[in-house]
Amino acid sequence: MASARQLSKSGGLKSAASRQKLKQQQPNDRGVATVPGSSGEGSSNYPYMKEEHVLTLGEHFYNRTMVLVQQAARSSKESSLWDIADGIYKDVEGYISKEAQVRAFALLMYNKGLEDAQNAETVAKLCSRLASLEAEGLKFRSPLLKQLQEDFISRATWKDNDPNRWLAFTCYLCCLFRHLKIGDNYINALVEPVFTCLDSLVTDADSSDEEMKCGCNQLKELGPTLEELKPAQMDILLNMMKEKLLGPKSSHFSRLLLLEIIELRASGWHLTDTQQQYYSEIFC
Amino acid sequence: MASARQLSKSGGLKSAASRQKLKQQQPNDRGVATVPGSSGEGSSNYPYMKEEHVLTLGEHFYNRTMVLVQQAARSSKESSLWDIADGIYKDVEGYISKEAQVRAFALLMYNKGLEDAQNAETVAKLCSRLASLEAEGLKFRSPLLKQLQEDFISRATWKDNDPNRWLAFTCYLCCLFRHLKIGDNYINALVEPVFTCLDSLVTDADSSDEEMKCGCNQLKELGPTLEELKPAQMDILLNMMKEKLLGPKSSHFSRLLLLEIIELRASGWHLTDTQQQYYSEIFC
Repeated sequence: MASARQLSKSGGLKSAASRQKLKQQQPNDRGVATVPGSSGEGSSNYPYMKEEHVLTLGEHFYNRTMVLVQQAARSSKESSLWDIADGIYKDVEGYISKEAQVRAFALLMYNKGLEDAQNAETVAKLCSRLASLEAEGLKFRSPLLKQLQEDFISRATWKDNDPNRWLAFTCYLCCLFRHLKIGDNYINALVEPVFTCLDSLVTDADSSDEEMKCGCNQLKELGPTLEELKPAQMDILLNMMKEKLLGPKSSHFSRLLLLEIIELRASGWHLTDTQQQYYSEIFC
Repeated sequence: MASARQLSKSGGLKSAASRQKLKQQQPNDRGVATVPGSSGEGSSNYPYMKEEHVLTLGEHFYNRTMVLVQQAARSSKESSLWDIADGIYKDVEGYISKEAQVRAFALLMYNKGLEDAQNAETVAKLCSRLASLEAEGLKFRSPLLKQLQEDFISRATWKDNDPNRWLAFTCYLCCLFRHLKIGDNYINALVEPVFTCLDSLVTDADSSDEEMKCGCNQLKELGPTLEELKPAQMDILLNMMKEKLLGPKSSHFSRLLLLEIIELRASGWHLTDTQQQYYSEIFC
């Protein structure tokens, strides 16, 4: 993990100053409390907050993250989202001391990831950094994963009634699977949901071009991992993608997306310059 | 090269007996002649023949080859076409002593390869074995290649007027390129014609399923070689195949053939068992 000085340099919140500022911003109707079980250094100096205040605080951290990410993108600095997330983690841990706070904060961050598919990956990375945040034995990742699994069950109704939410969910699920590891390991319970959603995005007869694009983009990132974890399932998915490519109903754009993934996978998930050039020119 | 005993065992013509039999079958209006420059052992014992007699002899060797190939296929013996071709070579060289005979024999064999696309590869292998047969400084391969190049120029008219001949020619051209080497080297002059014909077979808008199949079958065999010899040209060909696959006018069968080659090439010209299984099941 980067040191406090590094974090400060790289765009993370400057711990002492920003905590003080936040402390002034946040309502505090219970005064300063001792925080049992908090792993955050110096966390006992910070106020115990009601759930709605955790949400306000969470909004602040989310907005702050987005501003920092945009600044980093504009300035082309080398400060990465991981550095920013480290800074956010350091600041958050001082304010979280109760199980209810962890839960509220995790669900807020979870919902942020569903708001905008564009930000899904950024929020997933932030959640990944916050995953081990803990109070009273509850880790940030637990309510997050629970909600993810509940929403996975609801996905079928969204697909028909709220296609944007369905698309945002599958995108976010894939991003969380990619980034939310335990140690160096992917979370096994997510492999099946990820396959199911990707399958639906890229092989359903009525998939829109947007769904196809989202699914294929996720496959570009996740393909090697999914193949390593479940090679037989990847074979089945790829064969269904071939069927769709060969069928009469796909749009030209869909066929192009499918062909790129089929070629990518056949090439061992790494295209040559010439192969890449073909797709970048044709997609322009 | 296999020894005479091996050849006899493996289905090649038994030299002495068959020569004697042929001698009795062939018209011989010039009597026995000394054969200057013949490389065949004992060739001076055999008659000088007029061109038409060479053709009759050639027909005999061709028919004999086909019978032996069919016998070998039926009996599942390990005797290969190369062993049979060795036997034919041994027998033929005793009868060929003049430049005109070499030319007539080569053109006969060349035309045999165009008669039936099914036999194109067998004839190409036989021609490859006979390539260095020589009389009066003329090698068997010279008139063969000359005719191949002349026919390559005529191919455009065949394509419109005699599509079967065009198809047989492209198939035979590819088979000759594959087998008719000088030492270990492919004949460079044939690379461009091969690319041109394959391109036409698999990317022309009006290619029939039969043409597509012939072209893709040849690409399966020749792909690695052509890619090694002309990687940039192979990129162009593959990109055109992708265009055709993605376009609206290809039949399902054509798209399937194209996809198999695209996947094969992306996989380094070697499909995994699962990839192979997909295509063998879907083609059934």
